[in-house]
Amino acid sequence: MTLSQTPLSGGIIRSDRQMADSRSIKYYDAGTVDRSAVDQRPYEERPGIGELRLDLLTGDWIAMAAHRQGRIFLPPKELCPLCPTKPGLLSEIADTNYQVVVFDNRSPSLAAPASDWQLPEIDGIDTPLVDAAGKCEVICFTDDHETSFGALPESQIRIVMEAWRDRTREISQLPYIKQVFPFENRGEEVGVTLNHAHGQIYAYSYLTPRTEKMLAVARAHKAQHGRVLLDDVIARELEDQLRIIAQNEHWIAYVPFAARYPFEIHVAPLHGVADLAELSDEAADAFPAIAKEVLARLDGVFGIPMAYIAAWHQAPVDEGRDVLRLHWQICSIRRAPGKLKYLAGSESAMGAFIMDMKPEQSAAQLREVKI
Amino acid sequence: MTLSQTPLSGGIIRSDRQMADSRSIKYYDAGTVDRSAVDQRPYEERPGIGELRLDLLTGDWIAMAAHRQGRIFLPPKELCPLCPTKPGLLSEIADTNYQVVVFDNRSPSLAAPASDWQLPEIDGIDTPLVDAAGKCEVICFTDDHETSFGALPESQIRIVMEAWRDRTREISQLPYIKQVFPFENRGEEVGVTLNHAHGQIYAYSYLTPRTEKMLAVARAHKAQHGRVLLDDVIARELEDQLRIIAQNEHWIAYVPFAARYPFEIHVAPLHGVADLAELSDEAADAFPAIAKEVLARLDGVFGIPMAYIAAWHQAPVDEGRDVLRLHWQICSIRRAPGKLKYLAGSESAMGAFIMDMKPEQSAAQLREVKI
Repeated sequence: MTLSQTPLSGGIIRSDRQMADSRSIKYYDAGTVDRSAVDQRPYEERPGIGELRLDLLTGDWIAMAAHRQGRIFLPPKELCPLCPTKPGLLSEIADTNYQVVVFDNRSPSLAAPASDWQLPEIDGIDTPLVDAAGKCEVICFTDDHETSFGALPESQIRIVMEAWRDRTREISQLPYIKQVFPFENRGEEVGVTLNHAHGQIYAYSYLTPRTEKMLAVARAHKAQHGRVLLDDVIARELEDQLRIIAQNEHWIAYVPFAARYPFEIHVAPLHGVADLAELSDEAADAFPAIAKEVLARLDGVFGIPMAYIAAWHQAPVDEGRDVLRLHWQICSIRRAPGKLKYLAGSESAMGAFIMDMKPEQSAAQLREVKI
Repeated sequence: MTLSQTPLSGGIIRSDRQMADSRSIKYYDAGTVDRSAVDQRPYEERPGIGELRLDLLTGDWIAMAAHRQGRIFLPPKELCPLCPTKPGLLSEIADTNYQVVVFDNRSPSLAAPASDWQLPEIDGIDTPLVDAAGKCEVICFTDDHETSFGALPESQIRIVMEAWRDRTREISQLPYIKQVFPFENRGEEVGVTLNHAHGQIYAYSYLTPRTEKMLAVARAHKAQHGRVLLDDVIARELEDQLRIIAQNEHWIAYVPFAARYPFEIHVAPLHGVADLAELSDEAADAFPAIAKEVLARLDGVFGIPMAYIAAWHQAPVDEGRDVLRLHWQICSIRRAPGKLKYLAGSESAMGAFIMDMKPEQSAAQLREVKI
C-alpha cells in the first residue's frame, strides 16, 4: 500500500499503488495529484501462470492461458472496469478520477515466472514445456468512457507517451523479458472486449515471430549495405513522397510500400531509435500532434470511426538494438464502409497477404481527408 | 471450345471446356457425362495481372491485386455464380448440372505472367517490382447450393479429392509455380463472399512465409535427427493419444500440441507423402470418411455450423520434398457460441499467438461429440 511518487519527463509524476489482489497500479499525472485512494474490493485469488508450447512445425512459441475464457466481455457502461471508481462501481481504478493509469492485467496471458525460469533450448518434440513467462499490463488512456485515443487533447497523449516510455524502460529490466510491446486494439471488429479507450502492454519472454523475422532481415541489410534498414526505408519514402500522409519536425507517417492492409500506416521518428526508452523528450513532445493527425485522417476516410490495431514495434531488450528501429504500425481491416478485409486462407494459413488496393491509392485517400 | 476428356483414378473423368472469356473450366465426373454445354455469356475483358512487392521489413512478398475491389459479395441464391446455369441465370458453369468443377478465378490475385518472368533476387529497397505470377482457381464441391463440404456423400468428396490431386499434379508443371495450395474458407465469419460450398486453389510463384518457415524447421530437424519432422510429430500423437480425434487405416486427425486456434485439427496420411499428387489411391479412397467425421465433430461441438479455414499444406514443387509432408489443417476461430477468437495485437502485429484453451481440452470436446 506504500505510495511512492516518481517524477518523469514533461512534468509528469508517477504514483504507485497496490490493488486489493496485490496487483500493481500506476497513476501518471501532469503535476502532483493525491493518489492515495484505496481499492475497496475484496481480495481475489490471482490466476496461475499459463504455459509456453513449441509449435513443432513452425518453431514458434504459443502461449496457452487456460484461465482466460471467463473474462469480461463488452460490459454496459455503468459496469465498465476501466472507468474510475464511482458510487455503485468499484472498478479497477480505486480513485474517482485519473489522467492515465497502468495496471497488471487481471487475466494475464503471460506472467512473472519462478526466479530460476529460463526459455528452453528448442529440441523438436523433446522441447520441454515451460511457464508462460512475461508481463501483461493494461493502460487506460483517459478516465472519460466516451472518447477515443485520437480524440484526446495533445497534453493527454503526451502523458500516455510518457507512460509507454516509463513502462518500456522499467519492464525491460526484468531478467525474463525479451521484448516490450505496447499496442491498442480499437473497435469491436478487432475483438475489443471493453470499449473504454485503453491499450495493452505485452512483454514477451521470447522473440515474437514478427520481431525475429524483422531482426533477421535488418541484420542482413546491415551486413550487406552497412546501413540501418528503417533509415533506408524512410529515405526512400521521403524521395518518393507518394505514400507520405503526415510529417513534422520529429516524425514521419506513411503507407508502407508493400502494405498488407487496406489502410496501414507506419509512424516513425526521423531520428531513429531502438525503442521508446531511447526516444528524446523533443520527439516525445512532437508525437501527440502527428498521432492525432494520422488518426483523424484514418477516421476521415469513410467518415466513421475506423477499427484498427496500433502496434509499437521496438528492438528487443538485449539484441538487435543497432539494427531495429522504433515505429508505430497502425493497421485497419476496413476496406470500405460495410466491408472488412478478412484474413482467410492465403493470409491466415500461409501468411501470404493479398492486397486489393495499392498503397499509393490509400495514401492519396488519407491525404485528401480534410482535418 | 474443344472438349478433351481425361480418365483419372477412381473411375473419374475430367472434361475440359473454355468459358466465354476464354478461362478454362474442368468438370470432374464419376463416369462419362456429356459436358458439351457452351457458355452463352458475352465476352468480357479479363483483368490485368497484379504486382508483387517486397515487404522490406519482413522480406515477405505481398501480392497487390488492384482490380479485385468490385468483386461480387454474398449475392442472393438466385444469382449465385457457382450454381449451374438455369433459366434466368447464366452462371460460371455453362451446364445445367455438375458433380465437381474447377475453373479459373474471375478476379485472380495471381495470374499467368509473360514467358520470361522470374522472381527477382531480393535486394532491399532496390528489389524490382514484378508481375504477380501464379494461378487462382475456384473449385465447386457440388451443384447443390444448400449443402456443405462435410455433408456431402463420401463418393462426392472422393471426386473433390481427385480434382485436388489432378490440379496439384498439373499446376505443379507450370514453370513459374513454387507451391500449390488448395483451401476452403467456410462461413461469413471468415469473410466468405459466396455461400455455395466451394474452395479455392492458390498456386504461388514464391514460397509463402508459412511454408518457408516450415521448410527451415523441417530441414533443421532432418539434419539433427535424420528423420522427417511430421513423422515424429505423428508418432508422438500416437503415443500420447490425448489429442487424437479420429483415425482410420490411412489417416490420423489430431489437435496439434501447440494449436493456435480454439479448434484446430490436423489431418495427415499415416504414410507420409510430399503432396496430393503423391498420395496413393488407397489413401485418397480413405479420405472422405475421415473428412466427414472430423467436420461432423467440429459442427457438433456447439451444435452450429462452424466457420473454418481448411488448408492443404503441401511440399513446394521443386524443393523440400524429402522433408515436408502433406497435411490438412482446419482452423476454426469460434471459441464459444457467440464468441470468436480475433487476431488482435499480439497475433496480428507480432505473430505471437495466445490460446485461451488447451489442445487437450478441445480434443476432448471434439471426441465427445456424438456422430
